[in-house]
Amino acid sequence: MANIKDVAKHAGVSVATVSRFLNKNGYLSDDAKENIEEAIAALNYRPNQVARSLSTKQTNLIGLIVPDITNPFFPELARAVEDTALAHGYTIVLCNSDENAEKEELYINMLTQKYVAGFIVTTNLLKAPHYEDISVPIVALDRAINSTIPTVSTDNVEGARLGTEYLLTCGAKNIVCMRGPVGLGLADDRVKGFLQATSGEDVETQVVECPFSFEIAEKITEKILLESPEIDGIFASSDTSAIAALKVAQAMGRKVPNDLQIVGFDGVQLGKMVSPGLTTVAQNIYKMGASATKMLIKMIEDDSLQEKNVTVSAELIVRGTTRKD
Amino acid sequence: MANIKDVAKHAGVSVATVSRFLNKNGYLSDDAKENIEEAIAALNYRPNQVARSLSTKQTNLIGLIVPDITNPFFPELARAVEDTALAHGYTIVLCNSDENAEKEELYINMLTQKYVAGFIVTTNLLKAPHYEDISVPIVALDRAINSTIPTVSTDNVEGARLGTEYLLTCGAKNIVCMRGPVGLGLADDRVKGFLQATSGEDVETQVVECPFSFEIAEKITEKILLESPEIDGIFASSDTSAIAALKVAQAMGRKVPNDLQIVGFDGVQLGKMVSPGLTTVAQNIYKMGASATKMLIKMIEDDSLQEKNVTVSAELIVRGTTRKD
Repeated sequence: MANIKDVAKHAGVSVATVSRFLNKNGYLSDDAKENIEEAIAALNYRPNQVARSLSTKQTNLIGLIVPDITNPFFPELARAVEDTALAHGYTIVLCNSDENAEKEELYINMLTQKYVAGFIVTTNLLKAPHYEDISVPIVALDRAINSTIPTVSTDNVEGARLGTEYLLTCGAKNIVCMRGPVGLGLADDRVKGFLQATSGEDVETQVVECPFSFEIAEKITEKILLESPEIDGIFASSDTSAIAALKVAQAMGRKVPNDLQIVGFDGVQLGKMVSPGLTTVAQNIYKMGASATKMLIKMIEDDSLQEKNVTVSAELIVRGTTRKD
Repeated sequence: MANIKDVAKHAGVSVATVSRFLNKNGYLSDDAKENIEEAIAALNYRPNQVARSLSTKQTNLIGLIVPDITNPFFPELARAVEDTALAHGYTIVLCNSDENAEKEELYINMLTQKYVAGFIVTTNLLKAPHYEDISVPIVALDRAINSTIPTVSTDNVEGARLGTEYLLTCGAKNIVCMRGPVGLGLADDRVKGFLQATSGEDVETQVVECPFSFEIAEKITEKILLESPEIDGIFASSDTSAIAALKVAQAMGRKVPNDLQIVGFDGVQLGKMVSPGLTTVAQNIYKMGASATKMLIKMIEDDSLQEKNVTVSAELIVRGTTRKD
């Protein structure tokens, strides 16, 4: 395989000139550039990235930390991050944190040793001191880490208000909000939107905490529907809990949407696979992943960010779990 | 931050000795080892992985190439690969190939430049010459690439026979097999199992090709059920197509499982989220991912493989889309 000396010889320049070309620093004449490009093509030379990263202290790896790739929200996010990264010559190291601070820290340590160029992080941890002294850029995705780290997220208050208002329009009178973990910003915001939409309206409401887990959401729904059979509307803070509620309601003989209407939040593909299809507040997951990746690459490449906190609008998708009279 | 000289000084040994320790080559006295370990701990020294990979020509990165992480089978596989890799000190670079040979090749080139230690590959491509001259170990997951690359896969013939036989036991008399792409080994094997189970039995059968896509499977199911209303059983070659069939059948007013029974193949989490839950031939996805990762790490670390081709059994999971009389 050709090495840097072969390229220099073929191009008729010094090794130092080729090195300047590869590292994009220092002056180069147009002729020299052209000759080097020709030599690289002719010799099928692949610059040794590891050696180069030693001098630039940077590779084109991006660490993507998610709670669990098997939660249906994250593959769609990972896909957007990877597509965008690849288009800019970066690749993605996938890390499942299981919302465990020690595991997040282990990954950060392992990856900064490898001169990872930056991190995109989705964490549910309420305290994350291990993000405070990282030497590479970070972008927080879907939920803020702290006030200094740039963030891409959905307008959760607005989205939840939109979804709840639609339930009201469809005639629901007795609505339960299955909210996410208390203290988690996005979950708190979605409750805020729910309360904004229902306050002052002629409806009964209750708010029940429910983690983003299918199995636990099944149990909680069963309990709610047994204790409060008058419930005719569910606003769920995630599609996973909405789909769990749909399944349990159907198993208990409740007709969806005739007896009970359900609106989810997220917009994962799963929502269109169930019967009836799930009406949901869809986050623009792909756009969020792509925006976060572009922001991170800007930071890595030393461009300044025009906006540190990007909010992406959510959109109502009406399917079969609601009925407009 | 401490560097290798600080460690050598603190341990009272030469830099070369610390280097031998870090690279695990050459003789070291037990005393020296102990002193170096103490020094590393005391100074919180993190060996510079990039510099080290230059001498050993190896990092602890593993490339994981999948067709598309948003297909529900792959997050579960990726999760198993990552868990197992992390336990051995490796991290995962995630690559979506979109079953596009050029994109696979681009990733392989980018990652071998970074001295990735090996690849785990799931590809649907029937021809994959770009895997022939890779200098690092590869393990093929879920489907074979060629006869020289070690493979972890499900016993697809046996699994498909198991699923089809269960449909027969449940009384289905007019069965369609929605098979995967012709020429793809695992899809061909599943048809083989279907035919083994139905041959000589008093049932009508037909085999229809259907890619692993939810939307196309919906269209194909609609066509089948309109043209052949007598169909009372579907054996689908993937859970995605089985769930598409379930959704379409319900929308067309067919009662599942009373009028129509459905058995899928894969065992993704999605199968338990739909109503009724999907009866399916479950691959042991986690075990497959974990086995492939262990095999790859053995190859990377120069241990010989006892078995080059590992077959993992599939298991029938009975849920609500079938009815045993």
